[in-house]
Amino acid sequence: MTNTLTLTELATVADLEVDTSPEALAGAQADKSGLVSDTEPVAVVFPRSVEAVQETLRWAHQHNVAVVARGGGSGLSGGAIGQAGELVVSLERMNRILEISVEDRLARVEAGVINSDLDAAAREYGLWFAPDPASRQWSTVGGNIATNAGGLLCAKYGVTRESVLELTVALIDGRVLRIGHRSVKGVTGFDLVSLFVGSEGLMGLIVEATVKLLPIPRHEPLTLAARFRSISDAAQSCLDISQSGHTPALLELIDAPSLRHIHRYLDMPAPDDDEVLLIAQADGADAAESIRHFGSLCEAQGGQVDLGTSPADSDDLLALRRSMHPAMESLGRVLIEDVSVPRSQLRAMFEEIRRLEEKWGVEIPTVAHAGDGNLHPNFILESDEVPDDIWQAADEMFQTAIRLGGTLKGEHGVGSLKKRWLPDELGQDQLEIQREIKKVFDPKGLLNPGKVFPD
Amino acid sequence: MTNTLTLTELATVADLEVDTSPEALAGAQADKSGLVSDTEPVAVVFPRSVEAVQETLRWAHQHNVAVVARGGGSGLSGGAIGQAGELVVSLERMNRILEISVEDRLARVEAGVINSDLDAAAREYGLWFAPDPASRQWSTVGGNIATNAGGLLCAKYGVTRESVLELTVALIDGRVLRIGHRSVKGVTGFDLVSLFVGSEGLMGLIVEATVKLLPIPRHEPLTLAARFRSISDAAQSCLDISQSGHTPALLELIDAPSLRHIHRYLDMPAPDDDEVLLIAQADGADAAESIRHFGSLCEAQGGQVDLGTSPADSDDLLALRRSMHPAMESLGRVLIEDVSVPRSQLRAMFEEIRRLEEKWGVEIPTVAHAGDGNLHPNFILESDEVPDDIWQAADEMFQTAIRLGGTLKGEHGVGSLKKRWLPDELGQDQLEIQREIKKVFDPKGLLNPGKVFPD
Repeated sequence: MTNTLTLTELATVADLEVDTSPEALAGAQADKSGLVSDTEPVAVVFPRSVEAVQETLRWAHQHNVAVVARGGGSGLSGGAIGQAGELVVSLERMNRILEISVEDRLARVEAGVINSDLDAAAREYGLWFAPDPASRQWSTVGGNIATNAGGLLCAKYGVTRESVLELTVALIDGRVLRIGHRSVKGVTGFDLVSLFVGSEGLMGLIVEATVKLLPIPRHEPLTLAARFRSISDAAQSCLDISQSGHTPALLELIDAPSLRHIHRYLDMPAPDDDEVLLIAQADGADAAESIRHFGSLCEAQGGQVDLGTSPADSDDLLALRRSMHPAMESLGRVLIEDVSVPRSQLRAMFEEIRRLEEKWGVEIPTVAHAGDGNLHPNFILESDEVPDDIWQAADEMFQTAIRLGGTLKGEHGVGSLKKRWLPDELGQDQLEIQREIKKVFDPKGLLNPGKVFPD
Repeated sequence: MTNTLTLTELATVADLEVDTSPEALAGAQADKSGLVSDTEPVAVVFPRSVEAVQETLRWAHQHNVAVVARGGGSGLSGGAIGQAGELVVSLERMNRILEISVEDRLARVEAGVINSDLDAAAREYGLWFAPDPASRQWSTVGGNIATNAGGLLCAKYGVTRESVLELTVALIDGRVLRIGHRSVKGVTGFDLVSLFVGSEGLMGLIVEATVKLLPIPRHEPLTLAARFRSISDAAQSCLDISQSGHTPALLELIDAPSLRHIHRYLDMPAPDDDEVLLIAQADGADAAESIRHFGSLCEAQGGQVDLGTSPADSDDLLALRRSMHPAMESLGRVLIEDVSVPRSQLRAMFEEIRRLEEKWGVEIPTVAHAGDGNLHPNFILESDEVPDDIWQAADEMFQTAIRLGGTLKGEHGVGSLKKRWLPDELGQDQLEIQREIKKVFDPKGLLNPGKVFPD
């Protein structure tokens, strides 16, 4: 067991700060999911080098102390929160950009580099970093990788996994593995890089990453907003756009309850009762043609189209979408869900959400990355406790997503909040195999225990 | 042990043909790598249903018979060849396209569907299947997935992994797992789909797959060919093109020895001594602008540019590249290597290949998927035996690729031929972990034993 003596031992490790202040411990009990653990972790440590991470893990391994890896604390599923008996390892101070290669269009970074810092650094070389979670101003590249984060631009540029070439991971016994390669292709052995992407701290700590950078598009993006009288019409337009042969860079659908709250939050006049908003962006060489085509598809479904003609217009149109989360947070504690369905099932999923609202007497404002079929239904809570009927509504929602061929988690990780539904999606056989794979890396079960897999 | 009695038992399985004819056994001893196993496998079985695969595996599991999964037999590394004591399971007759969804832009297929058959079926719906290995006319989708096959179009459209959404895999004990989802996104649990892509039959048999389809580009591709006086100039042009902000759909480099053999094979006048050929293609909305830009970049390096202006021109220009393999095969047995390096190291890799030619007194004609940094050096053998000096030259080549930040296998799998170099690339720690992951799926070690991992 950890006690003052063994913690003192840890404090001697070079490049490592051990923080047991009440503020540090309380901070590590929470993330952006709203979930707060019941008890304080043992300590929060801040390594500044791979060697310090290795020493920390060796210490934890020797003393059988559980380890929770943590980046910017921006998680939405309680995947990086610590509790009694656990050591939280914050990678925040490992925030150096080690290399940007223009020729190989890649960056090598420490895990704690902030997503938008990497993007800004890349842009000085005419490149950019595609993963764009809403948290990109404060989430870390390591955290993005550990959760396989998505974002608005996945419709065209894919999720984080598509951007990862190579990882350096520290195992619980202190060994370090370099997996993947700087080359674009590689099939030597099993794909351990993909196995670590989205592994939520269960198999090892991601300490460094080599990620792809993309050339900045040579054309300014163009954006349209279309208002529809019903979610069905808008969902049909999403499908029409997805099948048009033009690839939207972004395709965001805001349902009626969400739009009402956003208008109120921005002091705009109230929209019509069932009014929904669709925002589409194109950034290719044929952006103007694409956006006109998207506009005509929307009009064919009765949409009122507002065509942005400049980058400033794009920002204005996107501002509504970006106000969703603050608008929700202004109402109470928010539980953000993250179901994902095949594109064709978007309308069916929205219909089900409306049915659940009626059945359980709750409002479920929902926005969707419609280009991917990824929906974020929001539950607004009056207290920190999640009431039983909300859990039941969420349960029905997940079952529906799975029945429609989708998944309970599109891009936010499973963490603590969603683990109860894992068996429903994976089935017992697959769950058992996943547990066995974890054991290969972590036989003592010290890495992020109690997360992802149900107890 | 297998004997007539137990094989008779297998013959009673529904939807399964058991073939022990000398032709079938001999066929299963070879693939397109040139490698032939020393001994005959026990039998080749042809299941026609998932259930038949399950029954076959249960039988093998019960009787401790090793199982080698096989698709079109087009492998280039000896990954699907059988030998004494092994049962070869050919998925060739599981060749039904189960579904093509235009709305969700996906196809669900049995593992034995021929790649080009799927592509042709998709094109009837305005869609296409991106993975385009040279073997696409006779390789299977299951085999493409099991090796994470590449092709000419990876520069823009990625390798097979990028196209796989969902897999049905049969485990050695006869259980079936469905992994992944029909939705574009999903982060529930570890990414087992990516783990199976490229797993070369070591963890389970891929029996069905849901794969992404893409909309057919709305613009005809445009192609240019540029002849250079030296490989350095051409390699520099490849780098310039990769950094131009225009994404080539295809970027193929043919070195001087290869070009000489292709000219001879096609009865064309001999090229200049060090002449090399670069072929680039663009298929975006700005294809005309891209290809002109590529042309000017090539001219800046002294390239003589031939600009195709029609689809027929594209076919003509690509015909030279497509003649590479037949030209090689007309000379003797061919050992095709498959190293991959970061794009910036393409020139260094070619220089090293020229140095190895001089050192070992062998010719190594080499073509490259230059957009990915993936090179295919060819050794031409006079007999079926690979002489020692060829192995040594290959060994030096692999060490160089790894030193340059690359890998010994870009897209052809490890199979039997390359397993001796696996520890050099992965290191002992990673190799040990990979073996342990295999054990999770195959504790008895019955799936494709002796492949990928060194003995």
